[in-house]
Amino acid sequence: MTRPSSVPPPVTAVLDASSRWLPARLGEAEELLRAAVGGHGETLGEDATATLAAGGKRLRPMLVLLCAGPEAGEVTVRAAAAIELVHMATLVHDDVLGEAPLRRGLPTIAATSGRERAVATGDLLFSRAFALLAGSGDARAVALLADASVALARGELVQRRDAFDLAVSEERYLERCRLKTARLFECACLLGRDEEQLREFGAGIGLAFQLLDDVLDVSGPPERTGKARGTDLLDGTITLPLIEAAKSDTSIREVDLHGLDHASAEILCDRIEATGALERVRARALQLVADAKGALERSAFDPEQKQLLSLVADGVVQRYS
Amino acid sequence: MTRPSSVPPPVTAVLDASSRWLPARLGEAEELLRAAVGGHGETLGEDATATLAAGGKRLRPMLVLLCAGPEAGEVTVRAAAAIELVHMATLVHDDVLGEAPLRRGLPTIAATSGRERAVATGDLLFSRAFALLAGSGDARAVALLADASVALARGELVQRRDAFDLAVSEERYLERCRLKTARLFECACLLGRDEEQLREFGAGIGLAFQLLDDVLDVSGPPERTGKARGTDLLDGTITLPLIEAAKSDTSIREVDLHGLDHASAEILCDRIEATGALERVRARALQLVADAKGALERSAFDPEQKQLLSLVADGVVQRYS
Repeated sequence: MTRPSSVPPPVTAVLDASSRWLPARLGEAEELLRAAVGGHGETLGEDATATLAAGGKRLRPMLVLLCAGPEAGEVTVRAAAAIELVHMATLVHDDVLGEAPLRRGLPTIAATSGRERAVATGDLLFSRAFALLAGSGDARAVALLADASVALARGELVQRRDAFDLAVSEERYLERCRLKTARLFECACLLGRDEEQLREFGAGIGLAFQLLDDVLDVSGPPERTGKARGTDLLDGTITLPLIEAAKSDTSIREVDLHGLDHASAEILCDRIEATGALERVRARALQLVADAKGALERSAFDPEQKQLLSLVADGVVQRYS
Repeated sequence: MTRPSSVPPPVTAVLDASSRWLPARLGEAEELLRAAVGGHGETLGEDATATLAAGGKRLRPMLVLLCAGPEAGEVTVRAAAAIELVHMATLVHDDVLGEAPLRRGLPTIAATSGRERAVATGDLLFSRAFALLAGSGDARAVALLADASVALARGELVQRRDAFDLAVSEERYLERCRLKTARLFECACLLGRDEEQLREFGAGIGLAFQLLDDVLDVSGPPERTGKARGTDLLDGTITLPLIEAAKSDTSIREVDLHGLDHASAEILCDRIEATGALERVRARALQLVADAKGALERSAFDPEQKQLLSLVADGVVQRYS
């Protein structure tokens, strides 16, 4: 079986189980991605191509394709590529906003080419996503992706407004994660197939994904995450591990995040870890995945596709276990 | 006749001539704009609403509606609002990129709320544009706007790459203007009606608009433009007045734009003006408008609509005469 080089080990089980059709479709989506970021003449697409080459799990395209099933046609492959372009655009713009010099272990565009080029490169990826999707003539798909993009931008604005504020509630954190992360996973599933249980499934694993990402920011290790421990804390982003930790160690509430440097951020990570907060957040994420799989089980979906989607859900967890 | 308060004097002739239907349609587009930037809960849409309230000429929505004509329905009104949202998004992102503290005489979002919020607000406006347009189910319109957005982002990347480089050619400058400005004017016309001569008309007045904007950056006065003279020069943006001036005053080629401050930028503006470059660029813009009107005349368009569109073309020039 030919396996696209950009797809990492955790999802190989899914690929093996669906080797009849999924790798070929993922390969086609990858081709569309390459075409979408390139072809802008000379060095224009340079940063965008670098973002593409930096890899990523292609989780969202995989969800689109798996929800669509073996009959997935060109329109679905376009949607799979388009949603990854939107995801890439938000990563590039996030890097403009945050201070992280690394993303997936490589320098960010903002760090190498300046914020100016990063803003424009994100805009280019974003526009390309809609150009690609509109080309399929599927107005429902465009509306789904546009609404998810609105949610992403709102989530980013909530994150900015709540930055450095240790009084941010758990509810508010969860709402932000729904906007920033879960909505795009949900959108991926609905782009694949118009079925209500898929919405619940996608939103559930998306939220779990974000919770585990936030655990990873505290736990590291950097060799595995490709970024320094406490990167979120340095940006002033209040995450659930921090909120949880402050419940048992109230002195954490007194920390001034504005005053953090890399060394004190590491120390704060250790303090959060010492409260057992990471285990508690991890457990919640596992429960979210279990619930998501439950919603999937209750659906009238094809059994083989259910199994494949369950493997993706497990992949979200395994990557961080 | 009721005239939307956001529509400034230069285009009143057009409004008077089309008072039977245009003001009502423009008012509807304005309603859609308000709904699109608001309704994001609490202070989320604050910056976006401020951008909307800061006004603007609504030239692009007007072109959409005038090209569509009196039969313009809901789909066209949505397109009119959507193209203005994309335009607003690029203005907000431009402000992140540039150093200008003012836009239309008011502080920029980047200046008041920080670059972080400005990037996210631009993304929100951009997403909203596509959400609004997709809601009409018109895939052709989405494709037109997405392609124009790709051009805008490419134009921004060209501008960044060519920044501070006094060796930039006139051809390269014109190509950048086509991408950054003319394509959206062209898109506005084609959103209104699928007719090839309208493409030529829109592209022509769009390019003229940019040339005259670049003249205004050098000539001022700030009371009228709402920004300091030489703002482009301070950002390192090479414009046609500068390229033209350097042809007759070769010492201008020796200027190091990196070393400019507000005072020396003003002096450079005076030097450019002294070469007569502004008159030459203005004359070229007028010729572009004349050619655009010629293309319009040759079209099989309704005579009254031709007349109204000619008035818009004149408005582009008059604003700067």
